[in-house]
Formats: sequence, structure tokens, C-alpha cells
Amino acid sequence: MSNTKSYHMSTDDFRRHGKEMIDWIADYYETVESYPVLARARPGEVAASLGDELPVHGEGFSKILRDATEKILPGLTHWQSPGFHAYFPANTSGPAILGELLSAGLGVQGMLWSTSPACTEVETRVLDLLAELLGLPESYRSTGNGGGVIQDSASSAVLCALIAARERDSGQRSNRVGCDGTQVAYCSTQTHSSLEKAMGVAGLGRANLRQIEVDERFALDAERLAVQIRSDRAAGLRPIFVCATLGTTSSNAVDPIADIGRICSEEGLWFHVDAAMSGTAAICPEYRHLNDGVEYADSYCFNPHKWMFTNFDCSCFWVADRAALVGALSILPEYLANEATRSGAVFDYRDWQIPLGRRFRALKLWFVLRYYGVEGLRYHIRRHIELTGKLVAWIEADPHFEIVAPAPFNLVCFRYRGSDGLNQRIMEELNEGGEIFLTHTRLNGRFVLRLCVGQARTELEHVEKAWNLVAATAERLRRIVPLTEIDQLS
Amino acid sequence: MSNTKSYHMSTDDFRRHGKEMIDWIADYYETVESYPVLARARPGEVAASLGDELPVHGEGFSKILRDATEKILPGLTHWQSPGFHAYFPANTSGPAILGELLSAGLGVQGMLWSTSPACTEVETRVLDLLAELLGLPESYRSTGNGGGVIQDSASSAVLCALIAARERDSGQRSNRVGCDGTQVAYCSTQTHSSLEKAMGVAGLGRANLRQIEVDERFALDAERLAVQIRSDRAAGLRPIFVCATLGTTSSNAVDPIADIGRICSEEGLWFHVDAAMSGTAAICPEYRHLNDGVEYADSYCFNPHKWMFTNFDCSCFWVADRAALVGALSILPEYLANEATRSGAVFDYRDWQIPLGRRFRALKLWFVLRYYGVEGLRYHIRRHIELTGKLVAWIEADPHFEIVAPAPFNLVCFRYRGSDGLNQRIMEELNEGGEIFLTHTRLNGRFVLRLCVGQARTELEHVEKAWNLVAATAERLRRIVPLTEIDQLS
Repeated sequence: MSNTKSYHMSTDDFRRHGKEMIDWIADYYETVESYPVLARARPGEVAASLGDELPVHGEGFSKILRDATEKILPGLTHWQSPGFHAYFPANTSGPAILGELLSAGLGVQGMLWSTSPACTEVETRVLDLLAELLGLPESYRSTGNGGGVIQDSASSAVLCALIAARERDSGQRSNRVGCDGTQVAYCSTQTHSSLEKAMGVAGLGRANLRQIEVDERFALDAERLAVQIRSDRAAGLRPIFVCATLGTTSSNAVDPIADIGRICSEEGLWFHVDAAMSGTAAICPEYRHLNDGVEYADSYCFNPHKWMFTNFDCSCFWVADRAALVGALSILPEYLANEATRSGAVFDYRDWQIPLGRRFRALKLWFVLRYYGVEGLRYHIRRHIELTGKLVAWIEADPHFEIVAPAPFNLVCFRYRGSDGLNQRIMEELNEGGEIFLTHTRLNGRFVLRLCVGQARTELEHVEKAWNLVAATAERLRRIVPLTEIDQLS
Repeated sequence: MSNTKSYHMSTDDFRRHGKEMIDWIADYYETVESYPVLARARPGEVAASLGDELPVHGEGFSKILRDATEKILPGLTHWQSPGFHAYFPANTSGPAILGELLSAGLGVQGMLWSTSPACTEVETRVLDLLAELLGLPESYRSTGNGGGVIQDSASSAVLCALIAARERDSGQRSNRVGCDGTQVAYCSTQTHSSLEKAMGVAGLGRANLRQIEVDERFALDAERLAVQIRSDRAAGLRPIFVCATLGTTSSNAVDPIADIGRICSEEGLWFHVDAAMSGTAAICPEYRHLNDGVEYADSYCFNPHKWMFTNFDCSCFWVADRAALVGALSILPEYLANEATRSGAVFDYRDWQIPLGRRFRALKLWFVLRYYGVEGLRYHIRRHIELTGKLVAWIEADPHFEIVAPAPFNLVCFRYRGSDGLNQRIMEELNEGGEIFLTHTRLNGRFVLRLCVGQARTELEHVEKAWNLVAATAERLRRIVPLTEIDQLS
């Protein structure tokens, strides 16, 4: 006798509520420009609205959804707003959202090939095709000795690369008996802080990361890198790893990867290329030169969840020698490794990442690539770069402003010709205004405004509005803010 | 003049295709029992079906969805089938899927409180309420010195705990200049392999993990632990960390956490409790004793994405002293830490995890807790344990079978009274049959069948069917498989 009592949502109710949720999301995208881009919630405000107790008895889905509207929405910073120009883009799209929905609905685990073969094989194939689209070398394909895997973030990708480098250098000794503080890694002063964090996580020590000076374009100075490596070797240390960046977070600087790659090749160092921010540009033939020199790289990462309409998390990570990665992260002792895995007939992706479990993240990427097609993706990437170019021209034409770093893709670093304090005030006023959200960085010690053009629906009208707001706000503040106050802020 | 050309999915199309996808998923759940639970795809089969090229021009969503049906479905192992009894449950539910959908639709980043305050505050509040529901100590709440965070997996949670322990012991020295191979951690021979992997990742060395022997119930022997710690200290090593498990993956064994906790407390070791598999039981007052002794723990983890109807990834991780965790994982040097973060007024969750970016994962957990209500969740957890009890009784009543480990919750370890080879053949035949999927482990050197009762819709009829299939397959194989062949397999 079957007991049929159940608190589960029936499939009929799922159909009904699921469609309500789809409409809710469509409504959200249709109205997202009506919300202040940067959340105005004060600390604790959202938490207080949620109540102090879990419900004893279940609540209706409509009530839950109403609470999402009333309590969650006011506490969000709207990353999908066309007026979002802060940090980095984390753009999404219809096909990506529906791919994530399908992944959640199927609820399969991809930790081993056998726990859901399609979960592994779609990922491997899509990353092979994407490697080709980006002009990455043959060695990165699963058909050779390499292969690609989806990580949650570029932070995790660089950590995995670093551990693979650590073990290649130590012959698995660090994995077995621990690190000894003699291994050294290299990046530039502009490299994302996730590498410094990874040095700590991996037991190598943050102080063993050498942050090499950059040139006037904020790109790593390869000469200085070579000198530092020799100096470290002379001091009895073991150089193991170099990270170069194609499009730094701070200013979108492009490191000279061919020069760096040759040094790594001569010195026998693991060379990782972080193209998280800007790697998408290489899907356009005219920007593929971005990847010149990548043939020297042992690993490469770019984030479709930043600038390719695929919602977070989807960070694509390739290695030229998958055995080095798997050897560093596999938990099976070698004598238990199976022939199928070793031969490359199947990949067990748990051995390509830190966690064991994994969702079917390749679905959303596969949906995006197919729905847009290569030309559809290229169109929007080119459009973002074109709009960025217009913005650069407007800034250059205004004598009150200056561009402070090259803008090769879709990020502009600029400042009002005035004190740091005035620039900070301009940014704060703009963000409080709610129509746009932009953030800052420091370059050559100065406070610099950053404006990124990367949300899916950011169009000419939005960039025009942003620029007009920036210029008008600067002009207004210049007149009303006493100079002494500005100086105090500097 | 706005350029309106676009390859994006319009909101109208999103409404239409989104509803198609919702119906597709509902249809899937209505028919999931018609598919073989374990995928029958051969290596390379799915990949070959996907074609060798990315489309130049975008494809219609209906075509993409049709491919998902024709090419993906046959390559899946159906984790949501009521006949899935393998590994661990990774169950999901309507409200969880729709929470994930909302998270994908909003597309916000929760790396900092300010990048979307609601993303952080819902998570903090929900984990506070959940801590109360599980009977976890006051110290784990955000209102004290502790707090909870959602990790992608218990693997990542134990890695974070281990790094916090490493830094507490070394006074941030390991983070700064690297590990020195003298720090030692402890677990049992039955602890999940993710800890051994974490020892390697964290630069501590896998050989510095002491796997303590277990008792006849496969639970860690606290006496032996104390002896090993003393012996390591005498050898000049630094014991730093102990992991105890509530419900091991292999046999669901429950370590004596009060005894282990007292030892950790006396010795000053970081004590982590991994309740990933079975912690959900503590939401029922009659199983809350599971957590007796957890007041000694520095950190605790349980996975709603295993046995609480919340789709992967959702691993809840609490610490008693958040400053220790944040201090180990924050990339800001201490002199730059801000007062708001330190005072607990806001949490920046990037400092509670390995990656920088993070999705709004708390939404699905919040949806599940509200939709089911506390009593709804308890009903289904009790029901799974009750069904497991029935299965145990049937096995015990059959003289051909034996139970080989206690079954405190929803996992049964048993074997046919025959050779290991025969048991392996039984498992393989059952899995090839497609109606159920179960996996194995080794206990006391013998091949043991594991049957887990944890999928959302697994009911009495499914457990009955599974048992009848097991018994009938065993009986049939015992008669037809020549003894010599069985012995060769052993």
C-alpha cells in the first residue's frame, strides 16, 4: 500500500508556478531600468524584512514570489541593467537562463563520466569547439593531450593551474608531504588578487608571489620578469609559475604574452594566461591577435560569464597537458587509476577541479553558442567595443577629462582633470543618482573612474546617457564643492 | 540614433521558450521512471552526436530543445529518478528549481555585501534560522562571533575549514611564507576523500593526514585519536585539525563527536564536523541528538543539496569564529580591513570562500524552507528513514542476505551471503537492467552493496521494487553463475 501523502510541488503546480516565474523574470528585464542600479539598502534592512522564524507549515508559492518582489528586489544591485558599468560585466541572456533552468531541472551530477556521460561529453565538446573559435592551439583540445573544463570562476582556474605547476615542479612531493616555502610565482602589479589568494590557499605563501612592475600601458614588463626569475634562482628559490593577463581587471591592460611565454618556455615555468575579462574578443577574427603567443601557455582561462551572455558561473579553463592537472588533483592513487581515464577515452571532471560535485554547466554555454551563432555573438562583442570607442572619443574631446589608460576593448579608465577627491565625489554622486553605476581604480597613485560597456542590453543611448551624466555631474560639482573639501577627500 | 539590431532573445520569446522549458521539465519528472536509471551511453557517443562545428548563424530555440531531448537525455544517469539509490542522494524539488531559475534571471553577484546586499543578507539570515532548526549552538549564528555561508560542496567547506585551522595554528605564517610540512590533521579511515584532497591542495601534504582506525560500527575510535595526537606531538609535529563525520559516505557511520570534541578542546585543535550526508536528520527533534557534542566544533557542514530537496550546489557551512575564517581567506591585508566588516555589520562573502564571484544560491534554499515549511521537510525525512527501516527488516528476514553496518538513517549496507564476485555480478545486473541504480563500497575488505533511500519521490513502492529485484537477481545468479567464475571475480 503506497503512502501518497506528499508536500512536494506537483508537476501541475510546477507548470503553473514555473510559468509565473518565467513571466516574473521577463517583467524584470522589461522594467530593470526603472530601478536604481546600485542598491540603496542599508546594512541589515533586507535581513530584518525576512522575519525571525521559519514557517512551521508550508507557504503558497505566490506568497513567496511576492516576497521576492517586495523584499529582495529593493536590496539588489542590478547587474543586468544596461546602466551597470561597474567592476566587470556579468552579463546573461535568455538562452543562458534557460540552460541553467534545464540543468537545475535535470539535477544530475557530473563528477565522473559515468555519473552522467552527457554532462561530461557536452562540456568537453563545447570547449573543444570554443577553443577553435578563439584560435587557441590544437594542444588544448581533448583530441590531443589537453582539454577544457568549466570552473566556477577564474579564481578557481588559476588555483588549479598553480597547483598543477606546483606538482609538476615538485614531482608530486608538495602534494605528498607538503610545501616547503621555496617555490615562487610571478605576475604583474596589475594581476587580479585571486592569484595572491591562491598562493596562500595552496600553501605556497603570498610573499612568494613576485609582482613585477608594469610599463606605461600597465602591461607586465617582460625584461624585469626575466631578471627577477634569475635573481630568485640565484637565491636558491624555485620559480614555478607565471600568470599573464589579457585585459586586467583594473585597466584592461594586455600583457605581452609572446615575450612572457618565451621566457617561461626557456626557464621551464608553467605559463597561465588569464583572459577572464577580455578573452571573448578573440571570437572576432580582427581581435584574434590577442592570443598571439598563447602557444607557449600551459593553461588559459576566459569567462563566458563575464562578457559572453552566459550567466555566472561559467569560467572556461584549458590545459595543454591534462595529465599534469589530473595528476595534481586526482585523489585516486596511481595504482587505482583506470585505463579508460588514462587513455583519454573518458574524462572524470572531479579530477580537473577542487570540489567533487558538479552541475551540468555546459548546457547554458551550449545554448548560448547555438542560439546566437558565431555571427550573433560577434555582432554584440563588436558593438560593445564600438560603443566604447565612441565614449573614448567623447572623453578625449572634452578638455576637462583625460583618458588614463589604453582602452583596447570595452573598459575606459578616465578622470576629471581635478583632485582625487573631486573624482571620488563625482563617482559617488553618479552612483547615488541611481541611473548608472560605475566604480573606480587607482592607476599611478591617482583615483580613476572606470566605465565598462558590457551588459547584454547596453546600447548607444545608455552610453550617451552615462557620458552626459558624468560630464554634467563633474561640471556641477566643480562649481559647488569647495576646493578645501575636495582636497581633504584626496 | 539608437542601433536596434540585436541577436538577444526578446522578452516575448523568453516568455514563450521559458514556458516550453518549464513544460519540458514537468514532462521529464512525469516520465523519468521510463528511462534506464544508469545511462547506457558508451564513451564518445554523446559527443559524436553534437557535431563538429558551431553554427555560424543562430538556431531556433525549439531546435535546441529538441536536441536536448534527442541527444542529451539518452546520455544521462537519472539522479532524480525514484529508482536512483546510488552514491548519495542529490535530490531537488519544484521550489528549489524555481529558486535557481530566479537566481539565474536576476544574475547578480554576491561577492561583496555592496554588490547586492540582499544576496548576502538572505544567505546570512537563512543560515541563522537553519542553525536554530538543526539545534546548532548559538556561537554559529551571525549575531554572535560566528556565521554561516553557502559553499558549492562539502569538499570546498572542509578545505576552507582546514585553511582556517592552518592559519590559526601558524599565526598567518603559512599564508604569508608557505607551509613547512609539520602540520598534521586527523580523520578516520572512513572519512570522505575530499579531506585528503584538501590536504594536498592546501600545501599541507596528504601524508600528513592521519586516518585513525574505526570501531566495529565504522566510527572513529577516539582513544586511538588521542594516542596519535600525543605521538605526533612527541615527534615534533603540530596537530592542527580533526574532521569527524555524521554519516560517512561509505556506510553512514556516525563518529562520536562529543568524545572527539573534548579531545580537540583539550589539545587546541580545530574541530570540523562533516554532516554533509546525514545532517538533515537533525531537523527532526528525535534525531537532534546527532548533534550532541557539536558545541565543541569550530565548523560544521551539511548539504541541503544531498537530502533536503535543494538542488546542487548548496552546502551549508558554519563557523564559530568567523574572524578565523575571514582572516585566512581575505585578500585584504589586515590594515586595510574595514570596520563595517569587522564589526559584523556586513559580511563580504568573498572572504568566506575560495572563489571571488558567487551566485544568489540562498534563494533556492529560502524557497524550499518556505514552500515545505518545517513540518513538510520533517515528514519526508522521516518517511525516508521509515522506508529504510522496512528495507532493513526485509534484508534481515532473508537468510541469504546480511546487513553489514548499522543503518541509522537512509543508507543500507548489505551483501548476499556469497563471494564478492557474486555480489558484484548482482550489482552489475541490477544496474544494467535499468530499473534501479545502486553502488557498492568495501567494508572490512568485503564487497558490499549500498542502497540509499533519498530521492524526493522515492516511495514504498520503489523500495519494495528495489528489494524484490535485488533478491530475485541474487537468486537467479546464484543458480546460473558457475562458482569458478564467481571466484575469479572475487
